Amino acid sequence: MAEFVSDNVSGIHPKVMKALQDANTGYRRPYGNDELSDRLNGVFSTLFETEVFVLPCVTGTAANSLALSLMAGPINSICVHERSHVYMDECNAPELFSGARLLPLPGDYSKLNTQSLQTVVSEIGELHSPQPSAISLTQTTETGTIYSLDEIAAIAEFACFYKMKMHMDGARFANAVASIGCSPADMTWRAGLDALSFGATKNGCLAAEAVVIFNQDFIPEARHRLKRSAQLLSKQRFLAAQLLAYVEDDLWLNSASHANSQMAKLANRLAEVEGVELPDSIGSNMMFAKFTAEQNQRLEAAGLAGYLFETGHMRLVCSWATHDEEIDRFVAAVTG
Amino acid sequence: MAEFVSDNVSGIHPKVMKALQDANTGYRRPYGNDELSDRLNGVFSTLFETEVFVLPCVTGTAANSLALSLMAGPINSICVHERSHVYMDECNAPELFSGARLLPLPGDYSKLNTQSLQTVVSEIGELHSPQPSAISLTQTTETGTIYSLDEIAAIAEFACFYKMKMHMDGARFANAVASIGCSPADMTWRAGLDALSFGATKNGCLAAEAVVIFNQDFIPEARHRLKRSAQLLSKQRFLAAQLLAYVEDDLWLNSASHANSQMAKLANRLAEVEGVELPDSIGSNMMFAKFTAEQNQRLEAAGLAGYLFETGHMRLVCSWATHDEEIDRFVAAVTG
Amino acid sequence: MAEFVSDNVSGIHPKVMKALQDANTGYRRPYGNDELSDRLNGVFSTLFETEVFVLPCVTGTAANSLALSLMAGPINSICVHERSHVYMDECNAPELFSGARLLPLPGDYSKLNTQSLQTVVSEIGELHSPQPSAISLTQTTETGTIYSLDEIAAIAEFACFYKMKMHMDGARFANAVASIGCSPADMTWRAGLDALSFGATKNGCLAAEAVVIFNQDFIPEARHRLKRSAQLLSKQRFLAAQLLAYVEDDLWLNSASHANSQMAKLANRLAEVEGVELPDSIGSNMMFAKFTAEQNQRLEAAGLAGYLFETGHMRLVCSWATHDEEIDRFVAAVTG
Amino acid sequence: MAEFVSDNVSGIHPKVMKALQDANTGYRRPYGNDELSDRLNGVFSTLFETEVFVLPCVTGTAANSLALSLMAGPINSICVHERSHVYMDECNAPELFSGARLLPLPGDYSKLNTQSLQTVVSEIGELHSPQPSAISLTQTTETGTIYSLDEIAAIAEFACFYKMKMHMDGARFANAVASIGCSPADMTWRAGLDALSFGATKNGCLAAEAVVIFNQDFIPEARHRLKRSAQLLSKQRFLAAQLLAYVEDDLWLNSASHANSQMAKLANRLAEVEGVELPDSIGSNMMFAKFTAEQNQRLEAAGLAGYLFETGHMRLVCSWATHDEEIDRFVAAVTG
Repeated sequence: MAEFVSDNVSGIHPKVMKALQDANTGYRRPYGNDELSDRLNGVFSTLFETEVFVLPCVTGTAANSLALSLMAGPINSICVHERSHVYMDECNAPELFSGARLLPLPGDYSKLNTQSLQTVVSEIGELHSPQPSAISLTQTTETGTIYSLDEIAAIAEFACFYKMKMHMDGARFANAVASIGCSPADMTWRAGLDALSFGATKNGCLAAEAVVIFNQDFIPEARHRLKRSAQLLSKQRFLAAQLLAYVEDDLWLNSASHANSQMAKLANRLAEVEGVELPDSIGSNMMFAKFTAEQNQRLEAAGLAGYLFETGHMRLVCSWATHDEEIDRFVAAVTG
Repeated sequence: MAEFVSDNVSGIHPKVMKALQDANTGYRRPYGNDELSDRLNGVFSTLFETEVFVLPCVTGTAANSLALSLMAGPINSICVHERSHVYMDECNAPELFSGARLLPLPGDYSKLNTQSLQTVVSEIGELHSPQPSAISLTQTTETGTIYSLDEIAAIAEFACFYKMKMHMDGARFANAVASIGCSPADMTWRAGLDALSFGATKNGCLAAEAVVIFNQDFIPEARHRLKRSAQLLSKQRFLAAQLLAYVEDDLWLNSASHANSQMAKLANRLAEVEGVELPDSIGSNMMFAKFTAEQNQRLEAAGLAGYLFETGHMRLVCSWATHDEEIDRFVAAVTG
Repeated sequence: MAEFVSDNVSGIHPKVMKALQDANTGYRRPYGNDELSDRLNGVFSTLFETEVFVLPCVTGTAANSLALSLMAGPINSICVHERSHVYMDECNAPELFSGARLLPLPGDYSKLNTQSLQTVVSEIGELHSPQPSAISLTQTTETGTIYSLDEIAAIAEFACFYKMKMHMDGARFANAVASIGCSPADMTWRAGLDALSFGATKNGCLAAEAVVIFNQDFIPEARHRLKRSAQLLSKQRFLAAQLLAYVEDDLWLNSASHANSQMAKLANRLAEVEGVELPDSIGSNMMFAKFTAEQNQRLEAAGLAGYLFETGHMRLVCSWATHDEEIDRFVAAVTG
Repeated sequence: MAEFVSDNVSGIHPKVMKALQDANTGYRRPYGNDELSDRLNGVFSTLFETEVFVLPCVTGTAANSLALSLMAGPINSICVHERSHVYMDECNAPELFSGARLLPLPGDYSKLNTQSLQTVVSEIGELHSPQPSAISLTQTTETGTIYSLDEIAAIAEFACFYKMKMHMDGARFANAVASIGCSPADMTWRAGLDALSFGATKNGCLAAEAVVIFNQDFIPEARHRLKRSAQLLSKQRFLAAQLLAYVEDDLWLNSASHANSQMAKLANRLAEVEGVELPDSIGSNMMFAKFTAEQNQRLEAAGLAGYLFETGHMRLVCSWATHDEEIDRFVAAVTG
């Protein structure tokens, strides 16, 4: 069943499903002119403790590409980690939406850092080069690591100095906030972000993401860009319903905390199994573990294997839905 | 409540909602690698009586723009009606996805015809002009009219002779099929279409459309274009679930028939009210009627007014959800 | 042959050729970092009586597309005449450079007017439509007519009111200035233009056009857009040399005056030939005349025929190079 | 000044200038419908010993971007060296023209190799990644090194196996051919190339490059892409004149041989000067030498300094125009 392959193998959280059903009454004006859509900006502004503008959309690729298109145009480049989702897994969508180039940069633990970013400075003002105008961080990263607030702040200082904008791909934003224990505001606009891709699908929605815009300069073009990118739903109330249910009563944070702690639980259990190599620390709902050949075979046979990398590491991800019994079954399969 | 403003003011059909709930069990591989997604090509191939390839996506704009991007590239132009949705209401998305220009052409009853299309022939082979490579019809049209099979065939002959591809924006395809009473195959590939935007959202889904590809040449690029346009859902099973429920047991056709007959019922009722101007014939679930100033005011006051055009005509649309009581209320408001 | 087919059938003016030779000494820094390129902004600022920024490029299509890309982006549309060069003869280049849609509008005498422009106002603020952000006039038009200063001013008022930018495709700007007898400033920024495509190729250069930017807001992106569009020459001194020679000593204006008066001369001569239909007035270096079938045949046989339209009119164009003897030969061929 | 900064600091070769003057007679049909343009395909087919199709354009960036747009579209990526001109110095033009992503890859001596290319193989067939469809080599490279015919053949085998197309950025193609001593055919289509950017500007033209197309599949779209990219000159006869003069009588090869041998001469002379660090071997018209601080200062003072890299190396380039006396002056400045 692929329980640990990714958090997007999970379904729709019951509370989100209920919100969809509750929204399914009567007639509502289309394209966001409904009461639920009307509440989005307010609810997210409260959550982020500042006035924000929300673009609801249906995929993380759309959210990232839309957000980046507000920060970078056809004469620009966007600094990204060379292993990031926007660079590796979005099939030119960011380039399509923005017209800009993605500049892949190295960095330990899948994280950008100012040393790495420094290499692009020589292109600023260079007539023959696209001008770096934005930096995109992924939080949590593709390998489950997390930028500390200090790390974000250091990059934000760099961005500010060189007049670049800052984006965060927060497909797993909730897992990072849950792990660090800070406020959403601390991890975003207070740290210097201009826009956030606020992920909700992996963490319990059907298909719902939100571009949360902190930089007011981005607003005039935002809704037309949403429409142009074919992400404006006619029955947008059902997208709003998902996002509202996800944010209200801390569902987003509780679900992420659950995923994180289930991953910690799995790691603790695996630590007792001979032959398993685990990372030094686990910060979020993702882990790269190394099993013996026999263990890999048993996981495969049980339908429980995660994605296996060339290094021999298996990626494991927990979600809002991960039950203890699935952990039990996984450990049992490893143990043999 | 805006009951007759559009068919997209309706909600999710109970059978579609049930399908979403049924699909919400356990863990499934993401990005279309699930059992429900696996069934799409087969189910649609049966429906269309030929082997088709389906790209599921979430908006009509996406479906149209994706389909057109398979037929027209950056040196091309696409023949469209000057009042069509792709030209008037998709905010450059078809241009973004394809790189091609939309060529707006006139035509009575919101329909393209070969006389109108003939005007683009002079650009074929002209070095300084984008080359017309595709024709996009809207069925039913933006004003509720319907291309007859003969009209489609005539345009298809033109397209074939000039080596252009044929697309149908079928946001209301079901209403047209229900109205004409032909098979889906007759209205599409047998008539010469290369691809169809098969609408489902307006007619009972949450957010689900399908690009149905008849031309096998389009397949190799299709899935990457879906991904690049940010329309590949991670939890695609829920998109497949909607489309399958929509197609199975003729839900699509029954829902459209209902919408069409409710519109006929409304028209019949209004025909008895003094002062109301109705069109000569009504073929689908849309009608443009003209009311007196007092009638317009009463409809406005009752929250039942549709979109009012400069000509004084009001657009009225029925949907799968339109009940008799809403028709009663509407007629009552008109009658005063 | 083909003397009257277009003004671009002419060669390089001797003064421009001499400037190329004079520039061909020693070594010069590339990409515009040479003494001749350095003079462009100053010389054009003097010519236009205001501080301008010049982008030198090699084709009119490039000049138009670059200029428009400074005024309109991917969520915008650009109002153009439906018979204009940018719409009819540039094969999607304006769309490529800008990402915007061209909105073709009707208008008598190949000219836009405020009535025609008024039809786009309904799209302003409309979420589903690209937002009109620019108007492009062609001066002189594709049929040789000329916008009066009052006509330009009226459109500029419209543009200003609706916050649109104004561009002029001045591939034959010189012919218009020569015809009206106003200053370049009067026809451009004083009339409300934001940027001008200042044509030089047709009127005596090898391949040289200049985007003349009046709106200072356009400058920061301008040079990078030039480079991105593959129009930045490494040996730009030879492009600057052409433009400087063209502008200095009123070569541009004298050449255009010559072309205009040769066209007037040709018209006067043809007025005496039986069977020839001439337009009421001739304002520039272009004319659409109608000949008898025998006359057309004789012109064809003599290799002197211009482009023949479906209406039976033949387009005739004079250039800086048109000699009296060519007029003699043409009239002789018509006379038979 | 700046004699050794680049080969594009040189002017127009007298034979090319004479060709421009010779072409400047009478009237010619525009946009390539002239006798000189008509000869291009034939002359280049003879030169390359196979039937080729030529797109004449004015910048190397245009030639590269056009050629790549024939091999890679919006769902593709193009393998390039991370220090190549197309990646470093063309400001997103290849992306603009093609819609594809450039994939920067490492490689010693500024050259791609199959080990480096192997890293992209994992993306083939991967739905979330742009599909690698082309490889672009630069010959000679940005650091003056040269791909041997064996190296090209090895990459071509790789390209063929993975169904990728092969492009060569030959801005300094002539210098490579002159250095290796092979035929143009051997270095291009016989080695597996699909298209070549054949540089002429640096090596004696005003502004002239040619996309030489070997793959017949590229031809149908080629001319419209030329027009769309704003590179179709109205007075194209002057572009054809340059290219014909450049190719006839081996001017291209003789000029490149001269540049190469002048660079060898300069290196030999510098080898005798104390403190100068020279590369082991010199293959083309470019060299990276290291001087002492005093030598650098004297070169700077004499206006003879080339571009100085962070490593302390100075780039020096000879051209068709480099005289012995300039070498004398350079050596004198170094010697002090």
